[in-house]
Amino acid sequence: MTVMDLNSDVGESFGSWSMGDDAAVFRSVSSANVACGFHAGDPSVMAQTCRDAVAAGVTVGAHVAYRDLAGFGRRFLDCSPTELADDVLYQMGALEAVARAAGTRVSYVKPHGALYNTIAHHEVHAQAVVDAVRAFGGDLPLLLLPGSVALEKAERAGLRAVTEAFADRGYTPDGRLVSRREEGAVLHDAAEVTERMVRLAQDGTLTAVDGSTVRIHAESICVHGDTPGAAAMAAEVRRGLEDAGVTIRSFA
Amino acid sequence: MTVMDLNSDVGESFGSWSMGDDAAVFRSVSSANVACGFHAGDPSVMAQTCRDAVAAGVTVGAHVAYRDLAGFGRRFLDCSPTELADDVLYQMGALEAVARAAGTRVSYVKPHGALYNTIAHHEVHAQAVVDAVRAFGGDLPLLLLPGSVALEKAERAGLRAVTEAFADRGYTPDGRLVSRREEGAVLHDAAEVTERMVRLAQDGTLTAVDGSTVRIHAESICVHGDTPGAAAMAAEVRRGLEDAGVTIRSFA
Amino acid sequence: MTVMDLNSDVGESFGSWSMGDDAAVFRSVSSANVACGFHAGDPSVMAQTCRDAVAAGVTVGAHVAYRDLAGFGRRFLDCSPTELADDVLYQMGALEAVARAAGTRVSYVKPHGALYNTIAHHEVHAQAVVDAVRAFGGDLPLLLLPGSVALEKAERAGLRAVTEAFADRGYTPDGRLVSRREEGAVLHDAAEVTERMVRLAQDGTLTAVDGSTVRIHAESICVHGDTPGAAAMAAEVRRGLEDAGVTIRSFA
Amino acid sequence: MTVMDLNSDVGESFGSWSMGDDAAVFRSVSSANVACGFHAGDPSVMAQTCRDAVAAGVTVGAHVAYRDLAGFGRRFLDCSPTELADDVLYQMGALEAVARAAGTRVSYVKPHGALYNTIAHHEVHAQAVVDAVRAFGGDLPLLLLPGSVALEKAERAGLRAVTEAFADRGYTPDGRLVSRREEGAVLHDAAEVTERMVRLAQDGTLTAVDGSTVRIHAESICVHGDTPGAAAMAAEVRRGLEDAGVTIRSFA
Repeated sequence: MTVMDLNSDVGESFGSWSMGDDAAVFRSVSSANVACGFHAGDPSVMAQTCRDAVAAGVTVGAHVAYRDLAGFGRRFLDCSPTELADDVLYQMGALEAVARAAGTRVSYVKPHGALYNTIAHHEVHAQAVVDAVRAFGGDLPLLLLPGSVALEKAERAGLRAVTEAFADRGYTPDGRLVSRREEGAVLHDAAEVTERMVRLAQDGTLTAVDGSTVRIHAESICVHGDTPGAAAMAAEVRRGLEDAGVTIRSFA
Repeated sequence: MTVMDLNSDVGESFGSWSMGDDAAVFRSVSSANVACGFHAGDPSVMAQTCRDAVAAGVTVGAHVAYRDLAGFGRRFLDCSPTELADDVLYQMGALEAVARAAGTRVSYVKPHGALYNTIAHHEVHAQAVVDAVRAFGGDLPLLLLPGSVALEKAERAGLRAVTEAFADRGYTPDGRLVSRREEGAVLHDAAEVTERMVRLAQDGTLTAVDGSTVRIHAESICVHGDTPGAAAMAAEVRRGLEDAGVTIRSFA
Repeated sequence: MTVMDLNSDVGESFGSWSMGDDAAVFRSVSSANVACGFHAGDPSVMAQTCRDAVAAGVTVGAHVAYRDLAGFGRRFLDCSPTELADDVLYQMGALEAVARAAGTRVSYVKPHGALYNTIAHHEVHAQAVVDAVRAFGGDLPLLLLPGSVALEKAERAGLRAVTEAFADRGYTPDGRLVSRREEGAVLHDAAEVTERMVRLAQDGTLTAVDGSTVRIHAESICVHGDTPGAAAMAAEVRRGLEDAGVTIRSFA
Repeated sequence: MTVMDLNSDVGESFGSWSMGDDAAVFRSVSSANVACGFHAGDPSVMAQTCRDAVAAGVTVGAHVAYRDLAGFGRRFLDCSPTELADDVLYQMGALEAVARAAGTRVSYVKPHGALYNTIAHHEVHAQAVVDAVRAFGGDLPLLLLPGSVALEKAERAGLRAVTEAFADRGYTPDGRLVSRREEGAVLHDAAEVTERMVRLAQDGTLTAVDGSTVRIHAESICVHGDTPGAAAMAAEVRRGLEDAGVTIRSFA
């Protein structure tokens, strides 16, 4: 039986500001990356998001980030490893309490935005994130970019590292994301994206931007809900996977 | 055997800003009210504070507050009950994760500053705090002002409500704190304060500002560490209590 | 010649979060209440908003607020008068620099949300706002609720106080807004609203919720742009006023 | 006549947290770098600091920083040039309003902490700071590290760039600061520091860490007030300079 996880960012509203169509996302995904208040998400948004996840039967992950509301966690912040580890631990604990009150638990950790990208190569910040997850207890899996430096650090620490593919992104022949500054970085055709993800789930391969075949190790596929088109694409990817006999289930 | 708890606020530094002599406080108290990041305390301060509490054998409580760093949580904020309950739950969870990583747990909750004063009379905010403590699970005790509206709400919700006396404050004949705008509100003589607290621990009474005797129900005595004089007074109160045969032990 | 100002809140996005259709609003109003970073609006949002105001020929006002991003400035914050006056002055200065760089100036001040409502009755906060506007220099006019306590304080301080009507709100026979908890508080029919505002501009009167005629002193009409319907209503109110021969022009 | 400016950071308290002995600093310096709320300093602290500067006859500069209260502006934040320029402009405007209310003006700009160090080499952030100072108007001078990339960008934009020496720091033979990781980075002897600063003011030279003589171009000397020792050293440097016939006067 082929199994695949679908994950997406949710709970990114803040106070009076809304972001994304979480209701639509919850109909498509098996794993929800819930913002923890440092880049988005306030305690009430987090609480509602966890209740929605429970209602939808979706697994909750902590979407931890640099402390940067104004930049939505998309800007590298050169904090010390101690600061970063403590910030991550704080976010995990805050979400855990909110999740438990909603009848669920934090089941994995996905670093957000600049933190996600930074720990793909930044040894010290990668280790700090791993240290925080270890310190939290329960040895939760980390959801990461394939090839991320954080991967090996997680595994060395005895944590499970899960890698993901991005549904709407082009890949280079060596399995990396096509830079957003180059053509073919973002795919807009939902049918094409769905076909690619079915093949990924079944064969573990994708067609790279140059037409070659590239092998991608992914136990999860990241989809989006921040635009109507994105939410529709997420729904189509799920339908396509299910039609192809793929079971959608959280890795956690 | 007479038992009394001594509690004090700690972990109120933030980033590069220091506050209070926590090391001195930890030598005197049995319960530490640890700031959770909403009025003071950042994740690294919280982590260090919890490690210090463990080293000192002091019980950790969540010092939850309105979201107001600029005002140190000393200003009433007219948030909705949902916002308040979620904010309190978030703070408790964040501290719990940090405390567990340090080898301890959150064992009680003490609302801070304006929140502490507000829930003495504000029904809706009092209920919201109680709801949050219930939602957190584990039915932690709440440390409150005698006569606080939150008291009965806590007890009605099945929570233990613990009341405290303030070592350095004067009391009215009917058992309330003398207003800071009036004479006799704050006591500065450590010997007098110590003598009063010994009597409180042994008899449950104090001499009120008018010379009469007033009965105060207190399972804990609040001391301070924010000035050298305050930390010295806390030490003297502890020594005096112990010399009088009172066992200093957390209520939690 | 009949003249009326139309004002609306703009620049309420923050970081990655958008709010309102400012482009639509700028086509309808003569005065733009620009958020200053304390309840909404970050420096880059403020800069873009001021450039848009210049392009649209719209007058810029400082939409000053309590320091409360999480609550969007809609929650009363019991700050001291000194804190409030300094916070307001800070916001005015920040917007002034941004406005000047965009080729305009701050020409008036409108308190936002909870601050607007609070200074309608809270003597101390009203005085603090007035003090801040005086301290800023240039004696800018204040845009206020008719009957606001801040009105007399502004005038006593030698400031011009301008009052406004709310296009989509019902009024009591004694000229106050119908409470949002009661029927008739909010009007949804753009044609009816437009007709009311034309009459207000020409006669200074409105039909109250009980059918009686009520006199409202207003040099400005507040419209909204936070929903598509609101922005369309604003456009219709402007068109209706212009068709009736009313000149739309800022009071400042 | 030999003239030298003495500058120091002030107004770095925030809310209930104090930092530094500003009163002592104001007795020694001619230029005060006033925090603007992004790394330290809230509006009331800024107001009091500006009043103190006026009372002491000290020139006010805007100590602008990355938006990072938790990190005290000491952490690089990878913001966009637009965000940085707008953030700097916002801070300058906020301080200008507060300064004018106190009877003074912002007379120069000194980037703080990580921003100061970053624009010594980061072309894009250096240009953003320069753009902000230009956008503010009045072509205020920038106080910078000798050799800073921001220096040439300031001058190319028609701004005056003023360089400073650090009283308590060791210098390499090529005129750079000895790294804090190496011996001789920080000087603790007030008499030695004073002697060095007198020579710098008179000859423009210092003894480098290897004993050689190094030429340092500095129109200002940076002193500190964050410890009792630092404030005492600042006082001694001033006295030494005056005794040697150097006039202490702001460059602005």
